[in-house]
Amino acid sequence: MPPPITQHVRYLVLAVVLVFVVLHFVVSSTSESYAARVPSIASALGSWRPGSHAQYDVWYRGTRASDARAGLGDSTTEARTPKKREKVNATFVSLARNRDLWELLDSMRGIEDRFNSRLGLHYDWVMLNDEPFTEEFKRHTSGIASGTVKYGLIPDDQWGKGFPPNINATLANEKIQAMGKLPIPYAGSVPYRKMCRYNSGFFFEHELLATYDYYWRVEPSVKFFCNLDYDPFRLMQEKKAKYGFVVSLYEYRETVESLWKFTKEWMNKFPQYLAKPNMLDFISNDGGESYNMCHYWSNFEIGYLPWYRSDAYRSYFRHLDDAGGFFYERFGDAPVHSVAASLLLKPEEVHYFSDIGYRHEPFQHCPVAALQNQCACSVKTEENFEFHGYSCTPRWKEVAGYTAPTPFHWD
Amino acid sequence: MPPPITQHVRYLVLAVVLVFVVLHFVVSSTSESYAARVPSIASALGSWRPGSHAQYDVWYRGTRASDARAGLGDSTTEARTPKKREKVNATFVSLARNRDLWELLDSMRGIEDRFNSRLGLHYDWVMLNDEPFTEEFKRHTSGIASGTVKYGLIPDDQWGKGFPPNINATLANEKIQAMGKLPIPYAGSVPYRKMCRYNSGFFFEHELLATYDYYWRVEPSVKFFCNLDYDPFRLMQEKKAKYGFVVSLYEYRETVESLWKFTKEWMNKFPQYLAKPNMLDFISNDGGESYNMCHYWSNFEIGYLPWYRSDAYRSYFRHLDDAGGFFYERFGDAPVHSVAASLLLKPEEVHYFSDIGYRHEPFQHCPVAALQNQCACSVKTEENFEFHGYSCTPRWKEVAGYTAPTPFHWD
Repeated sequence: MPPPITQHVRYLVLAVVLVFVVLHFVVSSTSESYAARVPSIASALGSWRPGSHAQYDVWYRGTRASDARAGLGDSTTEARTPKKREKVNATFVSLARNRDLWELLDSMRGIEDRFNSRLGLHYDWVMLNDEPFTEEFKRHTSGIASGTVKYGLIPDDQWGKGFPPNINATLANEKIQAMGKLPIPYAGSVPYRKMCRYNSGFFFEHELLATYDYYWRVEPSVKFFCNLDYDPFRLMQEKKAKYGFVVSLYEYRETVESLWKFTKEWMNKFPQYLAKPNMLDFISNDGGESYNMCHYWSNFEIGYLPWYRSDAYRSYFRHLDDAGGFFYERFGDAPVHSVAASLLLKPEEVHYFSDIGYRHEPFQHCPVAALQNQCACSVKTEENFEFHGYSCTPRWKEVAGYTAPTPFHWD
Repeated sequence: MPPPITQHVRYLVLAVVLVFVVLHFVVSSTSESYAARVPSIASALGSWRPGSHAQYDVWYRGTRASDARAGLGDSTTEARTPKKREKVNATFVSLARNRDLWELLDSMRGIEDRFNSRLGLHYDWVMLNDEPFTEEFKRHTSGIASGTVKYGLIPDDQWGKGFPPNINATLANEKIQAMGKLPIPYAGSVPYRKMCRYNSGFFFEHELLATYDYYWRVEPSVKFFCNLDYDPFRLMQEKKAKYGFVVSLYEYRETVESLWKFTKEWMNKFPQYLAKPNMLDFISNDGGESYNMCHYWSNFEIGYLPWYRSDAYRSYFRHLDDAGGFFYERFGDAPVHSVAASLLLKPEEVHYFSDIGYRHEPFQHCPVAALQNQCACSVKTEENFEFHGYSCTPRWKEVAGYTAPTPFHWD
């Protein structure tokens, strides 16, 4: 005989009450959740629409520093927080020597504290070196990274001893010694030239980077001033951007004397590789006759690896490498990446991370929204390289049709 | 008629299953909680028992850096997390000029990232200045602090223009100019002397500090290398410690030529104030005949304010101040605090924070458990001031009966 209907009801009430008791206990014991304390990426991305450059820079405006701090008591923050943050297929990359360890740890802490660990993203790190990393290097970097760290050796034929086979060693040594007398950083250094060549033509081929789409280059002794409340990798992906920078400036002419000659040769040979439209006017003041020395400061860059692996980019690097400019002169990876990005990419494929506060000696960039984004840097003109006479960013903005975000006013 | 026993069981099973379904849903949706990712204070304190110094230093041993990183998947970590972190009545204190802003922000970031914000404690900050703080200073420091920031002006009679009334200005200026020729930091500076006097005798009286029991002094441009997985304020309170340090070293003799003479005068006058036992042997090699120049490096200190406000401490400061040593010589607040702590406190009331990785130019301390605690510093002897010949810490350890924690070995 089935029990009367009141029995059903009595047990259902018991179950429901039990469920509520357990719910209350669990929720109250996890109310200090990290997720509730940081502004969500999803909420930032929620306001994103494809459009002008300016729109990307105001993404994070919805979340004020004070809101973030007060987040614990803000129920809407919790409601906006995604259950699980979606990561992009990306990694940090550091080319470092064992003796760079402590300075690199400073940089890693900056990335982790302001972004990677803070937002709970835990992107990987790839460390590359022309010598094996020491146990000490591995232990400390792995200790500070919040993601997995992978340690790679650079193949000998991409760095190694001596010069590449196509280089006349006598001539190269002569030219390097001569440049070494000029007041130009690393002008007399062979390893620095190998580093520039590696960063120009090989890093993206390294087996440890093979599975990634995006990289963020991090050098020793750089500083990140501001909390980042969104994922720059995600921005790159959503915007279909292939190259991102923070600082741009003029190159030492003596280091790239023949760069434009070889670039023009290559352009004439492979016109099909040029993007239409492109950013030629960022690197040339005369429609391509000459190079104006403008380049993105590549010690910071966020880039799209398949672009480097494209026939177009590889062909350009090969042309420069065959010409020997990495050793007879001192072609930097910065002008090489920058010229390539300006010719091979459309304007909207290059992103200016104007909201990332960044310093690499001796220059720094401080976002106009510094106060809002909890930046330990000054927005004042004299300390902000963007407004320095030696910056190429004003030109870049003009060429790219970029609208500067309105300075933030504390009220 | 009651339902048969199988009916009871069927409904109970339904209730239990429902509870588990809800539990699973709630737990999985909050699995990225901050609380789950950091080792809990309660778990650290749980292993604490009053006893030798060494016991305090091994508190955090229960949590390895790798455990913390892997914490997301560690159910026991969550279980150990306290519902609400109990704060001590404490604050950070920074004496700073407006022009120190950017360097102070670096220090604040260190404290916030490694401890205050990371552990969700959000202790307050008190900023003190002999001039009003600028709006820029207030906005940026408030932006970076995770707790409330209070801004105070130092009363004119504790700093102000010129010298205090009891000082012979002609004699003081003569002596300051003479010392200024010696290779001693700030030897010719009047403001530096005022700062030393203020930190020696007045800061603890400031109205903004009146409600606090403990302070942690933070200077501009200092670095904190390691994650802190416990609350040093809590340690001070639990241990009933009144003074905490990281680095100790020898003072420049010329700056404190008469300090011991006046200290002895005062000891003879007020023998009742001396602690029994005390740490006299830390600051004197001959049972009190002379001062050996050992002092705690006071740019880092965690201290108990009521101790400074005691008749004993005030009486000692007054004696030195009446003698004029802050201006005729250059008595530092470091030797003044250190001599007072060594005479007025029992050995167990002074705590060596050997587990705090810290740098103030030009010296640094790196914990022996550096790897475990995710430190961006080297434990190697040459870079660790504790093992430098100029460190007083080996002597301190001997006098205090301190057992050094065993170096951590990565396995």
